[in-house]
Amino acid sequence: MKRRRPVRAVVLLSGGLDSTTVLAAALAAGREVHCLSVDYGQRHRAELARARALARLLGAAGHRVVKVDLSAFGGSALTDAAVAVPKGRSTRTMSREIPVTYVPARNTVMLSLALAHAEVIGAEEIHVGVNAVDYSGYPDCRPEFLAAFGKLARLATRAGVGGRPLRIVAPLLRLSKAGIIRLGTRLGVPYGRTTSCYDPVRDRACGRCDACQLRRKGFEEAGLPDPTRYVPAGRWRR
Amino acid sequence: MKRRRPVRAVVLLSGGLDSTTVLAAALAAGREVHCLSVDYGQRHRAELARARALARLLGAAGHRVVKVDLSAFGGSALTDAAVAVPKGRSTRTMSREIPVTYVPARNTVMLSLALAHAEVIGAEEIHVGVNAVDYSGYPDCRPEFLAAFGKLARLATRAGVGGRPLRIVAPLLRLSKAGIIRLGTRLGVPYGRTTSCYDPVRDRACGRCDACQLRRKGFEEAGLPDPTRYVPAGRWRR
Repeated sequence: MKRRRPVRAVVLLSGGLDSTTVLAAALAAGREVHCLSVDYGQRHRAELARARALARLLGAAGHRVVKVDLSAFGGSALTDAAVAVPKGRSTRTMSREIPVTYVPARNTVMLSLALAHAEVIGAEEIHVGVNAVDYSGYPDCRPEFLAAFGKLARLATRAGVGGRPLRIVAPLLRLSKAGIIRLGTRLGVPYGRTTSCYDPVRDRACGRCDACQLRRKGFEEAGLPDPTRYVPAGRWRR
Repeated sequence: MKRRRPVRAVVLLSGGLDSTTVLAAALAAGREVHCLSVDYGQRHRAELARARALARLLGAAGHRVVKVDLSAFGGSALTDAAVAVPKGRSTRTMSREIPVTYVPARNTVMLSLALAHAEVIGAEEIHVGVNAVDYSGYPDCRPEFLAAFGKLARLATRAGVGGRPLRIVAPLLRLSKAGIIRLGTRLGVPYGRTTSCYDPVRDRACGRCDACQLRRKGFEEAGLPDPTRYVPAGRWRR
């Protein structure tokens, strides 16, 4: 019997909790995983080094970093040092408005780059940690956005004119943060090595930005210990 | 009576024949034009300088260059020095296969960046010189691709959650190269200052790559003089 080659997948890996869980899930499903991290001029660039280490640790077949200078456009607290990262927002009302941490068209740009990579290496799937439940109110985290991108991807590439079909896989789309953490814990994700914070102080998470709050709440709801190293209380600098 | 502000548009400007015609058409239609050029690691980077000069000369309100390193992926003659630019292909059969000058997901990536820019500056339109007639067989030049991107753009951005709707405008989509040249000539486009060649030698066009051949044929069919400066015949280096 001829051995089929494993399905090849590009995983968009930021080094955060969500995308690392996606990486672990793709590997557990037997995919040959090629990670892609996007250096988009984000303030929290420590995550690129974490992404590289996590890709190696978990056993990805490859990891690539592509640079795109989204900070040239400005308009987001994540790429523009003049805009402050909001702290202490309520996790209950977070998703009702688009916060200043929203990076314009970020997921569209990142998925486009994943598409370019997928096309060159002949990958059949793009895996992405987009989540529509415990999210921060970004428009490009909604299921209808992903469906539209999937359609675009099939039309945009060689796949669209007779090649292999390309699938967008978003395994976390309808999970709560606690559900994501439970899934990743079953898969052995070393969450202590992932980073979610928008505004870390050295290698410590701030504990108060949207990402830190959602993460902390997720561990609480999952009833699991939170291995994140936070800045000690009372040592606030901003 | 209150004066309305002009419709704000992002024009993707490469400095080539097509996108410069799009710029002229947008200005003639009274748009406030913000040009965006993408430095994607292309070999023919002279076009970025031309784009900047053309944006100023024609009267755009702004011009921005955003860098994205598509050459990191390889796979195209336009970004990978190891892949030769094909010369002397027949313009009649060009569109039947995808050539090595195809840059994976290029239009998806460039439109995504235009979307980011449009969102930050509050533009209502993105104008792009995509053409589905005299094209080189790229999948991301088809009308259904553009329609899919328009849908994605509306879902991806603030516009998708209650903001202004965003339109993708492709005025050249169904024009022949000769038709584009006739339109641009009426609008006063200085075609001698535009550059289309994939493989120029200093500031001269090679005359034999797909882009040069389509351009030359366009001027012939339009019955207009071709102001392009070509490499003198017999001075071939590759």
